[in-house]
Amino acid sequence: MSDETTQKAQIGVTGLAVMGRNLARNIARHGYVTAVHNRTDAKTKALVEEFGHEGTFVPGYTAQEFVDSLESPRTIVIMVKAGAPTDAVIDELAPLLSEGDILVDGGNAHFLDTRRREAALREKGIHFAGVGVSGGEEGALLGPSIMPGGSEHAYAKLGPILADIAVSVDGTPCSTHVGPDGAGHFVKMVHNGIEYADMQLIAEAYDLLRHGLGRTPKQLAEVFTSWNSGDLESFLIEITARVLEKDDPTQEGVALVDVILDEAEQKGTGRWTVQTALDLGTPVSGIAEAVFARALSGHAEQRGAAQGVLPGPGAGAEGTGGFVAEADADAFVDDVRAALYASKVVAYAQGFDMIRAGSLEYGWGVDPGAMATIWRGGCIIRAKFLDRIKDAYAKNPELPSLLLDPYFADAVTRGQEAWRRVVVHSVTAGIPAPGFASALAYYDGLRRERSSAALVQGLRDLFGAHTYKRTDREGSFHVQWSSDGTEVRS
Amino acid sequence: MSDETTQKAQIGVTGLAVMGRNLARNIARHGYVTAVHNRTDAKTKALVEEFGHEGTFVPGYTAQEFVDSLESPRTIVIMVKAGAPTDAVIDELAPLLSEGDILVDGGNAHFLDTRRREAALREKGIHFAGVGVSGGEEGALLGPSIMPGGSEHAYAKLGPILADIAVSVDGTPCSTHVGPDGAGHFVKMVHNGIEYADMQLIAEAYDLLRHGLGRTPKQLAEVFTSWNSGDLESFLIEITARVLEKDDPTQEGVALVDVILDEAEQKGTGRWTVQTALDLGTPVSGIAEAVFARALSGHAEQRGAAQGVLPGPGAGAEGTGGFVAEADADAFVDDVRAALYASKVVAYAQGFDMIRAGSLEYGWGVDPGAMATIWRGGCIIRAKFLDRIKDAYAKNPELPSLLLDPYFADAVTRGQEAWRRVVVHSVTAGIPAPGFASALAYYDGLRRERSSAALVQGLRDLFGAHTYKRTDREGSFHVQWSSDGTEVRS
Repeated sequence: MSDETTQKAQIGVTGLAVMGRNLARNIARHGYVTAVHNRTDAKTKALVEEFGHEGTFVPGYTAQEFVDSLESPRTIVIMVKAGAPTDAVIDELAPLLSEGDILVDGGNAHFLDTRRREAALREKGIHFAGVGVSGGEEGALLGPSIMPGGSEHAYAKLGPILADIAVSVDGTPCSTHVGPDGAGHFVKMVHNGIEYADMQLIAEAYDLLRHGLGRTPKQLAEVFTSWNSGDLESFLIEITARVLEKDDPTQEGVALVDVILDEAEQKGTGRWTVQTALDLGTPVSGIAEAVFARALSGHAEQRGAAQGVLPGPGAGAEGTGGFVAEADADAFVDDVRAALYASKVVAYAQGFDMIRAGSLEYGWGVDPGAMATIWRGGCIIRAKFLDRIKDAYAKNPELPSLLLDPYFADAVTRGQEAWRRVVVHSVTAGIPAPGFASALAYYDGLRRERSSAALVQGLRDLFGAHTYKRTDREGSFHVQWSSDGTEVRS
Repeated sequence: MSDETTQKAQIGVTGLAVMGRNLARNIARHGYVTAVHNRTDAKTKALVEEFGHEGTFVPGYTAQEFVDSLESPRTIVIMVKAGAPTDAVIDELAPLLSEGDILVDGGNAHFLDTRRREAALREKGIHFAGVGVSGGEEGALLGPSIMPGGSEHAYAKLGPILADIAVSVDGTPCSTHVGPDGAGHFVKMVHNGIEYADMQLIAEAYDLLRHGLGRTPKQLAEVFTSWNSGDLESFLIEITARVLEKDDPTQEGVALVDVILDEAEQKGTGRWTVQTALDLGTPVSGIAEAVFARALSGHAEQRGAAQGVLPGPGAGAEGTGGFVAEADADAFVDDVRAALYASKVVAYAQGFDMIRAGSLEYGWGVDPGAMATIWRGGCIIRAKFLDRIKDAYAKNPELPSLLLDPYFADAVTRGQEAWRRVVVHSVTAGIPAPGFASALAYYDGLRRERSSAALVQGLRDLFGAHTYKRTDREGSFHVQWSSDGTEVRS
């Protein structure tokens, strides 16, 4: 523990719940003199007592003491709950700060809140940097993926520290300047949205293999483990195997997954992603279906009432339920793997479209390839195939869709027959796969030369005089449907 | 035209663009002395000159003159663009009004804006009623469907007028008190969301028949006309036939639908519906897929770049593309009809779930059966099957899902084999049907005894210590994944 009276801290962390505590330890372990502060003294004391040997901590027991302990210009990382608690901490600290100081929000703020706060603090000469941090408790301590937004000036001071504490992949730190104001929190939000889609697709693959093949969770753990050495290699596939092989700790011979209540919860960033994508006009159907699947799973009363009332396939008909014959089992496992990979590529293509749309809307200049680069380690969606995304944008920074990169176009082309077979199977067997199905519908919609949207525009013109454009000339047109039926330019 | 100096108006309309003008005419035609006002005098003059013979109009050329022309307590309907223009009109009128006056917003306001405005005006003693009006220009003039929100007091004055000008079905006016503050605009928003879903499903049915069977638009107009005398009987099916039979007015032998640019536009209420449903935790996947399908259709640059790069089914394999043989054509048409009906029931079930969730969240006490009743005429989604929805809620006001009403459960059960065949066909042929597919996935998700959400909860517990619930006892639990693997209660 440092000599508090003489040594100024290089950086401070306020909010010492588990994420803040671990981030402070991570910073101190990298040799930075770290001021620490918490609303209640106990957590500050506990941190210094338990982990003081890991580095140099300077405890501040009041906001003033905390601020005074920092070298100028000050750099303070706020690690409290998003929303009102973050505003409260900012309101307490801002009057104590000086022009040129840097205030960092390392929580899961909505990027529009970050934009608002950045603009307000900029008027006071304070640099406000919204920084997305992914990787949970363990990542915060051992090396997260970091998505820093904010001014160039703030990043010049902050960037090297973040690069030190972030995890590195192939020698490259998983932290890079995303863009001004809310850009970092925006990209972190999209990261979480993609995470929702990815988990939903994995759950559908599991469900199809479990109920289409009748495999046990332990057998499926082996399947996922084998998938983890191919294109699908990723943290989420790895931990899927771990969850599936786990027995219920309270009774032998029962899989944990079979005693977990099947109602998925959510903390809101998936919902934010879809809401924002709607404003940006970016179809993120994979993320939306994932959020809705969780919502539906939680409607226990409705689901209970539907039991025995809504029949599955074959009810009242000669259908078999469509389960897979044992002889075709291996081929089906391969098909599901291909469908999972193709659907995952679509989910990421949609996520990267959204990053591009957000960057354009807010003038951030986000480099999509750099986002793929910093997601390769530390965060929940870390995966081998992010290297491929990085490469795709390196080859063509203006790539209109990830699906159009030669590598991904080829991968999806090779996998599409299997993908279609799997969706057919899910529909026939009555095993819901909204993620697989919507990804495939998106793919078919994207590649289609003519879309049925022409009919939608015709209907809109008839009932609402909303006009339409034509394929053969410029302008907006309207048919005088209720009078002489002629077309007028509008 | 009335004697302006002696006769007070019973109701006023400000904002005389086509919707406001037609609503004012509708009111005056029903015998009400109607004050009219517009930001620019020309529209006020034109209305009185052109349509003065239809009833008694009292023109007001200033806000003060307009307000003074109304009997007390005053009732004023604002018919201007949603957003800032509405606030501007309210800000201009409110200081001129007295306690007990009623201000009505007949535009397409976001229900949260309506809540804000109602609360602010209530403090001044002014009743603010947000009223959804559906039916476009023609409906406004000849009889719209009306969804009035606001206080009981406001409705006591307003209700009889609205009932007079609304269309009637089987002697029942398509207008009823929806609930307090934003309830009317909320229900109008959901109406529009359902309209998006309904149109998307129709467009998918058209697409499958057009490209799966190779039928011409004129032939398909006949199919839709025949469907319009069964379960599907509705305004949207009727006008689909009209659009499909229409030739391009500028060249012979070419269908209009084939020269309309296939990029669907949107004005925002579909997007609002999905965004609000996400906040309410209600899965409205049918509406979301419809909004996203429109968004995708508008990304011309992406779609253009995908041409020739992303292949369809059969590429590199022996697949045929999956088109339907002529011998099976009639059966396929019947299947598509069944799939359209089943998917439509799901879209409405999701919409009515959302109305229930919104009503609970905001304490509105909305009667879902009454909403089905007032949607039977005047509005875009008017349809015969709304009678069935009305009946379903009459039998069971607490119905947990429309799909669980015996009539709809039976209809979907009978249609499900066809529904599954159609989705299989779309997937095999590569004709995107995201609406049909997501509706079916929702159905299978709802009726499922165990959902794959259990795996999602397991993953969340492993990477984020988010905990899970158990099927066999109360409480929240967490596995100590990175230490001894035991389960702890949290």
